[in-house]
Amino acid sequence: MTAHSAIGAPPLVAHGGRLDAARRLYPNAPQPWIDLSTGVNPRAYPLPPLADEVFTRLPDDDAFAAIDSAARTAYGAPAGADVVPGGGAQAFIQMLPRVFPAKRVAILGFTYAEHAACWAAMGVQVDIVETLDAFANADVGVIVTPNNPDGRVVEPQDILSAATQMSQRGLLIVDESFMDFTPEGSVARFAQNESLVVLRSFGKAYGLPGLRLGFALCSHALGAKLRAALGPWAASGPALAIGARALADQAWRTGAARACAGDAARLDALLTQAGFYIVGGTTLFRLAAHPQASRFFVHLAARGLLTRGFADRPDGLRFGLPPNESAWARLAAALESVDGG
Amino acid sequence: MTAHSAIGAPPLVAHGGRLDAARRLYPNAPQPWIDLSTGVNPRAYPLPPLADEVFTRLPDDDAFAAIDSAARTAYGAPAGADVVPGGGAQAFIQMLPRVFPAKRVAILGFTYAEHAACWAAMGVQVDIVETLDAFANADVGVIVTPNNPDGRVVEPQDILSAATQMSQRGLLIVDESFMDFTPEGSVARFAQNESLVVLRSFGKAYGLPGLRLGFALCSHALGAKLRAALGPWAASGPALAIGARALADQAWRTGAARACAGDAARLDALLTQAGFYIVGGTTLFRLAAHPQASRFFVHLAARGLLTRGFADRPDGLRFGLPPNESAWARLAAALESVDGG
Repeated sequence: MTAHSAIGAPPLVAHGGRLDAARRLYPNAPQPWIDLSTGVNPRAYPLPPLADEVFTRLPDDDAFAAIDSAARTAYGAPAGADVVPGGGAQAFIQMLPRVFPAKRVAILGFTYAEHAACWAAMGVQVDIVETLDAFANADVGVIVTPNNPDGRVVEPQDILSAATQMSQRGLLIVDESFMDFTPEGSVARFAQNESLVVLRSFGKAYGLPGLRLGFALCSHALGAKLRAALGPWAASGPALAIGARALADQAWRTGAARACAGDAARLDALLTQAGFYIVGGTTLFRLAAHPQASRFFVHLAARGLLTRGFADRPDGLRFGLPPNESAWARLAAALESVDGG
Repeated sequence: MTAHSAIGAPPLVAHGGRLDAARRLYPNAPQPWIDLSTGVNPRAYPLPPLADEVFTRLPDDDAFAAIDSAARTAYGAPAGADVVPGGGAQAFIQMLPRVFPAKRVAILGFTYAEHAACWAAMGVQVDIVETLDAFANADVGVIVTPNNPDGRVVEPQDILSAATQMSQRGLLIVDESFMDFTPEGSVARFAQNESLVVLRSFGKAYGLPGLRLGFALCSHALGAKLRAALGPWAASGPALAIGARALADQAWRTGAARACAGDAARLDALLTQAGFYIVGGTTLFRLAAHPQASRFFVHLAARGLLTRGFADRPDGLRFGLPPNESAWARLAAALESVDGG
């Protein structure tokens, strides 16, 4: 058992962002904690002032029309596709196994664990596979691209080929939760395809995961099933209002993409200097490998820096972007002070 | 076909709060529209300032612990019960048919249509029944108390008897979405009962339905199924933060209950004077009957006052509470001006 797992790895690695758990495990860590355990943009979209009606009224048709228009344009979804809003990409990961009957699901791994967990919970056989060829025997295929945590990208043409191969029997789920800053890799423009569903997350690139907003881009047939399952008010008034404004702000997105790319390069340099090998990632997080990764996790946590470990990949640590110069300095100092690091 | 249905009753009566649809149907109505079509408290809980972290971070264990504590105390749920938060009572109405297998569902009618719709969508036989005795042949029973729209109250002892009778095979769903101001009628204190699930809505009494927050109070066994189905972040950061604060504010709730009771009595007097018979309701809405109810609906809508009609009960109109003295004056003037009203 490594030091990493000995200090309570399961609760900390199940999802990123578990600062509350970290505070309890490391009560003497310097304040404030710096959360590098998520893939959330630390420079959030500026919160606009919100009309009271956003809270005091149910979201109405106009609110849903506005988010549809903004998301459709931002993601490049065609008129023939449905753009279904919900309480985060996770809401669709939860619901797809309940609306799409399947016996065998193939997931291109190693990836975000919730896909496998949600299908397995429905009693479906789940295979974690290494190539798209292995989708041949499955009713449902799942591709996360860019992949979490290693950033692996599956080319749109390969995704379309896989969708075509599955079209007789099934569904290809393409989780593009981290695609916002590399839109050229998206298959959203093919979302009307009956055997394709594209999932998008609002919270990560826009730095506002607390809002709970995400989308499924798919055929109208599948969209109708998802809408019926989620009900008439599947996202909150604040999520719809802020989401519609942010998704329409092309200038902010361009600037954010550039800023995150710069930070990701700076992070790679810092981690390489500390002896890590950069496995990959997106411009919102980096997966780095080190034989003593678990020792780094503990060392950083004791200094108030929370990173993300993986039970299935003990040599890997995922680092989100430091939010400010103070955080950069604390990360640099902590990395330098690891014995034999 | 009545004038009421002729002017587009289906979109307007499916749910309350469809001001956007009303504006399109009555473009010449005086501004601002007064929405009396919902059962939402027009004096909302004052929005507290929110920390940026409520938006920029995923809700964490501490946020969920805070809402658990506040809701448990406010609703009087025992330690042995699970208090499951979700995106509105509607989220549970949507999900219960997906986690609880049933063949026959009995719903005490006439009531909120979503219960029947969500069970029927799963292919379950749904019977709208008039007495609790008729639950005898069902796997699942549904009681809305106080009932929407007529305010019918089922006594806690009768609910417990029904739950006991169903305990061999099924589940009794008690929708207490309008119970906040009459807590003595709640069965929340029995929510650990394995054959009972109590649904609570945050948005109605607190006037903040846009937040999307509601709860299922139930056994830990059923709670685990609901939590697994809804996923790890089933309510947003703003909903959890505002909800925890509001639910802990006993003084506000007491004052709001008194204010709404006064408004409900004032509304009854006004409607009676206009020739309506008061069928019932709660202190957040009144169901009133008139042989020419549909003519009143149209007359009021043309004057910018949206009420709620019911396809199954053409003599009934439901009125929410006017939000201010200007709205009271416009409602009084409009009611007085109906020919033969």
